[in-house]
Amino acid sequence: MTLPPLQVDIERLTSELERLATFSDCPEPPPAVTRVVFSETDLRARAYLGELYADAGLQVWVDPIGNTFARWQGSDPQAPAVGTGSHTDAIPHAGMYDGTVGVLGGLEAIRTLQRAGFVPRRSMDVVMFTSEEPTRFGIGCTGSRALAGLLSPEKMQNLLDAEGDNYDIVRQRAGFTGELSEIPLSQDHYHAWVELHIEQGPLLERSRIPIGVVTAIAAPATAVFHVAGIGGHAGGVLMPGRRDALCAAAEMVVAIERLALETGGADLVATVGQLEVHPGAVNSIPSRARFTLDLRDIDGTNRDRLLTAMTDATLAIATRRQVDLTFELLNADPPASSDETILTAIRAACRDSQLEFQEMISRAYHDTLFMARVVPMGMIFIPCRGGVSHRPDEFSTPEQIAAGVEVLARTLAALAGG
Amino acid sequence: MTLPPLQVDIERLTSELERLATFSDCPEPPPAVTRVVFSETDLRARAYLGELYADAGLQVWVDPIGNTFARWQGSDPQAPAVGTGSHTDAIPHAGMYDGTVGVLGGLEAIRTLQRAGFVPRRSMDVVMFTSEEPTRFGIGCTGSRALAGLLSPEKMQNLLDAEGDNYDIVRQRAGFTGELSEIPLSQDHYHAWVELHIEQGPLLERSRIPIGVVTAIAAPATAVFHVAGIGGHAGGVLMPGRRDALCAAAEMVVAIERLALETGGADLVATVGQLEVHPGAVNSIPSRARFTLDLRDIDGTNRDRLLTAMTDATLAIATRRQVDLTFELLNADPPASSDETILTAIRAACRDSQLEFQEMISRAYHDTLFMARVVPMGMIFIPCRGGVSHRPDEFSTPEQIAAGVEVLARTLAALAGG
Repeated sequence: MTLPPLQVDIERLTSELERLATFSDCPEPPPAVTRVVFSETDLRARAYLGELYADAGLQVWVDPIGNTFARWQGSDPQAPAVGTGSHTDAIPHAGMYDGTVGVLGGLEAIRTLQRAGFVPRRSMDVVMFTSEEPTRFGIGCTGSRALAGLLSPEKMQNLLDAEGDNYDIVRQRAGFTGELSEIPLSQDHYHAWVELHIEQGPLLERSRIPIGVVTAIAAPATAVFHVAGIGGHAGGVLMPGRRDALCAAAEMVVAIERLALETGGADLVATVGQLEVHPGAVNSIPSRARFTLDLRDIDGTNRDRLLTAMTDATLAIATRRQVDLTFELLNADPPASSDETILTAIRAACRDSQLEFQEMISRAYHDTLFMARVVPMGMIFIPCRGGVSHRPDEFSTPEQIAAGVEVLARTLAALAGG
Repeated sequence: MTLPPLQVDIERLTSELERLATFSDCPEPPPAVTRVVFSETDLRARAYLGELYADAGLQVWVDPIGNTFARWQGSDPQAPAVGTGSHTDAIPHAGMYDGTVGVLGGLEAIRTLQRAGFVPRRSMDVVMFTSEEPTRFGIGCTGSRALAGLLSPEKMQNLLDAEGDNYDIVRQRAGFTGELSEIPLSQDHYHAWVELHIEQGPLLERSRIPIGVVTAIAAPATAVFHVAGIGGHAGGVLMPGRRDALCAAAEMVVAIERLALETGGADLVATVGQLEVHPGAVNSIPSRARFTLDLRDIDGTNRDRLLTAMTDATLAIATRRQVDLTFELLNADPPASSDETILTAIRAACRDSQLEFQEMISRAYHDTLFMARVVPMGMIFIPCRGGVSHRPDEFSTPEQIAAGVEVLARTLAALAGG
């Protein structure tokens, strides 16, 4: 299939990314962004996307938890569609490119093909997934998990936010209704799936290569550790008699880091991103501490080996210090490999765009990891400055974004057929 | 001087302690108490104390930052008075005896002497100090520091709460006005000072001795450590390239604990009571961490030696991990010794009450540490269950409290003269 020359409207896409960044609850101005799922700000951002979809003539369908499907209908509407998309929620103090490039970039890929006069045989969907980030409910990718049939209505009722409200209640309060049992996609719903995303790592920038072709997505596991010691007045209890929950937690954090560095292998990453102390007074011995662990590897067996080593090590610390440790595994998902046909289409799209590419794995968590359960998938990465993500200074240049959108457009066209 | 038999009204005192505990912002019911200085709840607790003082016929004077003096006038009103008292503020999730036993117990000591027909030569004051706890402004004993001339108006303007409001603004909003420069007490304002307090440690309970005679108060130092690393996406940055602020802070916490245990000596205690992580997301590498250090010893030189060792150790960790560390010393006060004449009066009061006593040091922070700068002082400790304090299960029996009040009453009578 040969396509006419494609002209990505990068000025328009850049201004849309900037406008989307203004929907934020971050105390700092954009590019700092905070956009938590089902918040008022999330709803306003969704409404803005709705306007853009309408401008492009797409048909929009929203599922019972807010996953949003914007369809460019193909000449064969009965054939399984080709899908692309990502998320628009953002962790506290995040940047403006993570996820958004895949949603607005997916829309611009469709508009680019429309402008070129391309008529797809299969329909093309841009999907905006609900809650890729774990900020509110402690677990990531709730929208794509549910689409893959991995988040049952019972599980949704057990997912609580900081106010103690469950996922089901919160989605209804945000205006998303309908039967939860109708969310999962059938295996023949989509023909193919491709997500465009910033790398969130430094490899492409270092090698000065504009496109990453993702061959596999690392398997994330997330756990919460609860340490219970004995509190008391900072002046009243001598050092040898203490069972300080924070000292125990601190030793566990250091042990987890050491295990990851020394025995984790080249690809494993372990992050303790949250640590909270109770009662949290200057002159009180901490009686409780809670921390999270985020563990990833493309090799699920290696990741699980490390998870076991880390729980063993933290339990040994707890025993020696005479504090209680309980351990809660929030999720431990298997890794996913890209589909060979889709990889071939992406490589060909790079060549047709005259863009160099390198094959790589994704250690970052993506909705595509779960879409892989119900549709053959691939991912396209573009460089981001310094490999930085989840920070306000996260940045990809307009040229880098335009390159990713062009490769995505050619890939979608090839997979949809003309 | 011989006193008639004294009858402490412990039922009344117990019910007053219980009533005071109801002035609380803790989500849990009493005995859990949260009472932060200059809050609405603090003001209502102060109003309740005012009623009790009026019932006892005491003259009340409130200084410009809310230190409250309730006076039983002596037969020689010109003679420097004898003072007792403590605080009624409480850290989050605290108990109901820390400080309150010294305020309501001081009042009950005066009422006990009144009922016995005692007529003091010197006036007797019960003092309720503003803000013994460091919860709101990060520094403890602001009321007694100011009385001792150690907290200048300039310093008050630099003390900020979490909302960024300074101490001077907040006290005025709470209704406390007047010239800050008039707060400090002259060296001849008081003849003697005695504070009654729960031990906040396990020694009296273990030795089954009802009264502790405090010979010295440990010297507290408080510092804040700010660690700045490099954040990023938990999946995007490989382990060897990380500058994780929490991992660095955790290693520092463990190092501080080890230094205290291994080289601090028998009396030194070191507590990291607060630790906060930024941005605090499950899947973000921490870019910043902040933690507090509370360091105490009766030997100020030893404490300062350990403080230096701890800052050296944490700086070495920061250098090795390539993170930034800044260090803020909030206070480093010298220790205080009790006055021999007052110790003699307390020992005699114990014998007259037929109560065993043991001499001990206080590692807990007390307003009396600062009152020691302007008046000869002593402290009376009573046991508390399990040595527990700063927790809802903090507890002393009515009998233990009554014993402390009787010894306090006899001590105050001896120091005031009849």
